[in-house]
Amino acid sequence: MPSSAPLTDRLLLGPGPSNPYPEAVAALGRPMLGHLDPEFLELLDETMARLRQVFRTSNALTLPISGTGSAGMEACFVNLLEPGDKVIVGVNGVFGERMCDVAQRCGAEVIRVDEAWGRALDPQRLVDAQAQHRDARFVAVVHAETSTGVENDVAPLAALASTDTLLVVDAVTSLGGIPVEVDGWKIDACYSGTQKCLGVAPGLAPLTFGERAVARLRNRSRPPQSWYLDLGLIGAYVGGSTRRYHHTAPISMIYALHAGLGAVLAEGLEAAWQRHQQVGNRLHAALPNLGFRLIAQSGHRLPQLTSTWLPEGADDAALRKALLEQYGIEVGGGLGEFAGKAWRIGLMGHSARDRSVTTLLGALGELL
Amino acid sequence: MPSSAPLTDRLLLGPGPSNPYPEAVAALGRPMLGHLDPEFLELLDETMARLRQVFRTSNALTLPISGTGSAGMEACFVNLLEPGDKVIVGVNGVFGERMCDVAQRCGAEVIRVDEAWGRALDPQRLVDAQAQHRDARFVAVVHAETSTGVENDVAPLAALASTDTLLVVDAVTSLGGIPVEVDGWKIDACYSGTQKCLGVAPGLAPLTFGERAVARLRNRSRPPQSWYLDLGLIGAYVGGSTRRYHHTAPISMIYALHAGLGAVLAEGLEAAWQRHQQVGNRLHAALPNLGFRLIAQSGHRLPQLTSTWLPEGADDAALRKALLEQYGIEVGGGLGEFAGKAWRIGLMGHSARDRSVTTLLGALGELL
Repeated sequence: MPSSAPLTDRLLLGPGPSNPYPEAVAALGRPMLGHLDPEFLELLDETMARLRQVFRTSNALTLPISGTGSAGMEACFVNLLEPGDKVIVGVNGVFGERMCDVAQRCGAEVIRVDEAWGRALDPQRLVDAQAQHRDARFVAVVHAETSTGVENDVAPLAALASTDTLLVVDAVTSLGGIPVEVDGWKIDACYSGTQKCLGVAPGLAPLTFGERAVARLRNRSRPPQSWYLDLGLIGAYVGGSTRRYHHTAPISMIYALHAGLGAVLAEGLEAAWQRHQQVGNRLHAALPNLGFRLIAQSGHRLPQLTSTWLPEGADDAALRKALLEQYGIEVGGGLGEFAGKAWRIGLMGHSARDRSVTTLLGALGELL
Repeated sequence: MPSSAPLTDRLLLGPGPSNPYPEAVAALGRPMLGHLDPEFLELLDETMARLRQVFRTSNALTLPISGTGSAGMEACFVNLLEPGDKVIVGVNGVFGERMCDVAQRCGAEVIRVDEAWGRALDPQRLVDAQAQHRDARFVAVVHAETSTGVENDVAPLAALASTDTLLVVDAVTSLGGIPVEVDGWKIDACYSGTQKCLGVAPGLAPLTFGERAVARLRNRSRPPQSWYLDLGLIGAYVGGSTRRYHHTAPISMIYALHAGLGAVLAEGLEAAWQRHQQVGNRLHAALPNLGFRLIAQSGHRLPQLTSTWLPEGADDAALRKALLEQYGIEVGGGLGEFAGKAWRIGLMGHSARDRSVTTLLGALGELL
């Protein structure tokens, strides 16, 4: 029984959760406060200010959604879409597919721009799709495709700012690990998760809405189909002068996010990006020596999430089991069309350390 | 700045969050595990088994939804309703109103059965409404109305089991504090929150679906409008033999729920009910001596959540501020039509102690 067994700890090198920053773990145990307590509201304000720093935005509506990263995706879509709306989605992995599913459940018509798994989307194709569908509500793209380890270029999509089509970006696996420039890239709506490069336990979805997205929210003809994720109502609690109650905020998780963001900003956001890049580079250089072959297109490889084909003859399940049981190391298996054939190795947040690479390479060297 | 200020703790006697059980606080800091780690899955299984014990059900589909109590409400409604469906809702407070709002966002036609705030719904009126609307998908009722401190009788609604209409119960403020008998009362779908009588931080919504609700899920003509709360997909992760990934589970919060339920079951569920009843009785008996007048209808007063008019001439905001700042005690203000005139005093979970009543009465005696 887990309740009486000794506690197990792991080196978490899968696609998330990563090992949280010690500050973020300690903060979970802060004394509970009510969601309308002045001291909690001050901490929430500070958390939102820190989120603006990591999102690189001045957007007022920047907050943690009370759910995991996928709730952030859903919050963007249900607030920006109405039935019959058209939306353009870039698809080169599981999370692009998920966007299509969520959009369809909002009653939207989905224009897909597909690319092979492992290859990056050409941003010009998304811009061209908008030129063909000028009435599209938004173009949505996954910045860091967790299923393939590919970075999709977002900066060129700033061109959409001169159209009536918004830009929505999934930064679940990128925020805190590689540059994300919400204002600089003219992103209208962006969401993330806490359990990847931000180094906090899973459970919250940081989200930011710019002016054009907020205007869209205000001009809806009907309320969003989700009451729980209705950003008009949530905004009146987190940002309103009256702090109108919506739902009970997940207090302890917000403590953890506040502290995790504090750790990231104390290191320096750019320093954290460099750390992720440096350890990722080292892993990419070393894996082929062990017989692994990197999957993601060169020039678009995420340092924080490496996708790789297994060495010839290696047994996916047996090797991951040995890593977990003999070394306490978790790596991720392949999703979708990569299942059983590929691994996903995360170096994210507090796990993005030279020590993690040394440990993993050492263990693999012993096992292979 | 909250980050550098000394930590503040409170005696939480509002409508939630309550003070969490020490076991539930300690568990938040357990080492992080991945959501597919065999040890985490074992702990998740044990958490679901414990939830079945507190819900008093053998329902296989019994799990924590990755959001707060309101996400539990939304999960029930989006999974059981399709556009054009009819639903009967008992309304005698804020949370009954919220059910109507959520149902309408699902495209449902809402048949309201209204009762004055502070009075209990007559269950016969809900049964009669079903007899007039035999095609209604479900009857929904809030067991413990957190806005008014009223208990609505659920047991007589077992009569719905002989019809084609399901019974959906909001047990956010009742579960763990007063008897909730999911199987005994033939409840088809029930949800709760962690931050009330279960004595765990806010952030999860325990939920259970019986056979008729699961059948409804299987016979839908289209997927639920929410991907995040789709119980078909979530069920394949929590209960499926393949543990198919849906979204990353909020690991630390599930640790806390697991431990909080452990504390409740170690005490004994009936003993916890008795503790809540006894401290509630004591508060109800003592408040009139200080000039407070209880609001909820006699015979339907919740022991865990007491609604009361303020003493003649007392200033709501000033008195709550003095309690918070001088004594570190939080009580809740009135919601909706009770705002500024009434208080809501919670004695829930770890806060449901004689010590809490003694402290509150002592502080009020000094302030009034």
